Amino acid sequence: MKVPAPDLPARVRIHEVGARDGLQNEKETVPTEVKAEFIHRLAAAGLSTIEATSFVHPKWVPQLADAETLFPLLDDIAEARKVSLPVLVPNERGLERALALGARSIAVFGSATETFAARNLNRTVDESLAMFEPVVARAKAEKVHVRGYLSMCFGDPWEGAVPVAQVVKVAKALMDLGCDELSLGDTIGVATPGHVRELLKALNDSGVPTSSIGVHFHDTYGQALSNTLAALQHGVTTVDASAGGLGGCPYAKSATGNLATEDLVWMLNGLGIETNVDLTALTATSAWLAEHLGRPSPSRTVRALTPPPSSPSHKE
Amino acid sequence: MKVPAPDLPARVRIHEVGARDGLQNEKETVPTEVKAEFIHRLAAAGLSTIEATSFVHPKWVPQLADAETLFPLLDDIAEARKVSLPVLVPNERGLERALALGARSIAVFGSATETFAARNLNRTVDESLAMFEPVVARAKAEKVHVRGYLSMCFGDPWEGAVPVAQVVKVAKALMDLGCDELSLGDTIGVATPGHVRELLKALNDSGVPTSSIGVHFHDTYGQALSNTLAALQHGVTTVDASAGGLGGCPYAKSATGNLATEDLVWMLNGLGIETNVDLTALTATSAWLAEHLGRPSPSRTVRALTPPPSSPSHKE
Repeated sequence: MKVPAPDLPARVRIHEVGARDGLQNEKETVPTEVKAEFIHRLAAAGLSTIEATSFVHPKWVPQLADAETLFPLLDDIAEARKVSLPVLVPNERGLERALALGARSIAVFGSATETFAARNLNRTVDESLAMFEPVVARAKAEKVHVRGYLSMCFGDPWEGAVPVAQVVKVAKALMDLGCDELSLGDTIGVATPGHVRELLKALNDSGVPTSSIGVHFHDTYGQALSNTLAALQHGVTTVDASAGGLGGCPYAKSATGNLATEDLVWMLNGLGIETNVDLTALTATSAWLAEHLGRPSPSRTVRALTPPPSSPSHKE
Repeated sequence: MKVPAPDLPARVRIHEVGARDGLQNEKETVPTEVKAEFIHRLAAAGLSTIEATSFVHPKWVPQLADAETLFPLLDDIAEARKVSLPVLVPNERGLERALALGARSIAVFGSATETFAARNLNRTVDESLAMFEPVVARAKAEKVHVRGYLSMCFGDPWEGAVPVAQVVKVAKALMDLGCDELSLGDTIGVATPGHVRELLKALNDSGVPTSSIGVHFHDTYGQALSNTLAALQHGVTTVDASAGGLGGCPYAKSATGNLATEDLVWMLNGLGIETNVDLTALTATSAWLAEHLGRPSPSRTVRALTPPPSSPSHKE
């Protein structure tokens, strides 16, 4: 039943991360054609922003080593459906590879904490910002949209709770470089709604408008959707989610499970918030991919809407 | 990190339903001593309201056929810790059995829809209310606390979306019988936050105060915690949850998983809302029971906080 809530936005843009953030942690190599079909099906289900792959060095993320082969297979959806296909670029070399293939939207991946910057980027936070500077400048010169991921915005497995002021400082620095939007990551899934609101308010107070902020919650402790609700109540209209709840972060302890796009869409549908996503088509896509990956989707909605492949009642 | 939100209650009472609502659907009989230990551990973890069992006819819920043996094993915690141990009673016969054992808190189980009343209670809604009338009257005469469960408050697998006015009518009737509190059940887990608020507001408008209302969400579509947040924002301070996410409803399609108490406590802890629950002790309890039941807890928090029993890194 659709029952809108007056304090919530009329429309939300889902930034679908399953094909990049979700698949990057799969140990078994997923064939390029499967990835291409996955992204085509996501687009057909109505998702308008689908992060496609990463132009990181294959040594670091072998699963996405096929970016050069995959990206051209998506040209049709970028054109026909006006779907945005952001790609992650770690540095100038990655940006050049992405630009050469015609990417029109990129993302850089920063950390709010020194420990995660050291472990994930092998740099200090300041050094990572210095590395992003020419990337963002070049992208902007090419009129390419730039998203700045900021991970460990709430807690860090090594540092514990992350002070809001520290997150605001790095977020501001990313915006000052020229990022068009930020994605605030709760990489280890520890956030709760009051913390979410406090960070959003502090960012606003420091001059970052809510319209430039996306949220990226992990469901490690089952908190992703209630944190999303708190963000929507603050006015956030960009929400990251992963089809079927694919993914996690291989470098962070306990960082299981992105918010499942289906669970998000269920809530948004119920609230009468427009997303343009066809939940049935999306669920079928995640069920299809789960079958390919050989394990059930962690999304509750996918499980509830998908009949078990060999239900006892169908056995002979 | 504790970051309170100003619009939320300072304290929430968790109505723990794992031992009754959770266990009643287990096919393998759980030994009475295990149930008693489970409830003792829940009490030791700080839960103050633990629904202990059901005095329904054993034919309907064989798992809880040991109510007469189990309940006396809990006398010590009722006395020493001032823990409330409500029991479900379906009718006058059940109430007599419960009263004979000294129960001081009971619950009746109603339905907001005719179809579920027919299937679960084998009665119309009006007939079920008539059946509860002498039960509630007798309990009140004995100064026993009475909770009225109301299931299918949002959606019904056969009837679809349930009109708010219909729920209000049955809820009012239960309050008029003399129930001290209501528990609004989203038995099939379809609710979303706007719907939750609308129902709570309609109940208030009809004269049922928020202080008499508990909420009982299922996580079938991953919505339980965000719906709980919406209820807390409305002022609700009684939340039903099931340790480890045990349970579901055997009579309703897709009715998997109660809200896991641990996922709820994680959010409440982060919001600085007092519950008096020790999350570490509670998680250990659910992990212990999961091992007994032979399958992992569906609670994300229990999974995140419990090391796998045979982690690869520990293999020789």
